Amino acid sequence: MCEANVYVMNKNVEELLLERVDTIIPKDREIYLENIFGERKTIEARIKELHLVDHKIILERFEKG
Amino acid sequence: MCEANVYVMNKNVEELLLERVDTIIPKDREIYLENIFGERKTIEARIKELHLVDHKIILERFEKG
Repeated sequence: MCEANVYVMNKNVEELLLERVDTIIPKDREIYLENIFGERKTIEARIKELHLVDHKIILERFEKG
Repeated sequence: MCEANVYVMNKNVEELLLERVDTIIPKDREIYLENIFGERKTIEARIKELHLVDHKIILERFEKG
């Protein structure tokens, strides 16, 4: 299976947000995630990088204005 | 291998942009893509949806102001 683990950058450390994610839909300032187990999360962040061969997606939160 | 094919929406049709993409890095209004063969493309667009189990990433161009 080719799902990926989604991490959020926190002070230069990658924190695991959700494992084995299949679907990702960015909308405005939010990102909707759904994994192969049907778990869903929405987070206010943007996509920083995808590395699919490594099964890794990195998000980052917006800087506080 | 778990790379994905990247499509761009064009008038409600998904057009293949680059096959077997590993790395995707959005930056400002552009998205940098690199596939497992070392091919690289940069496109002015945003990520619309990812469906990793289907190996499918869909981009959309910005609407012209």
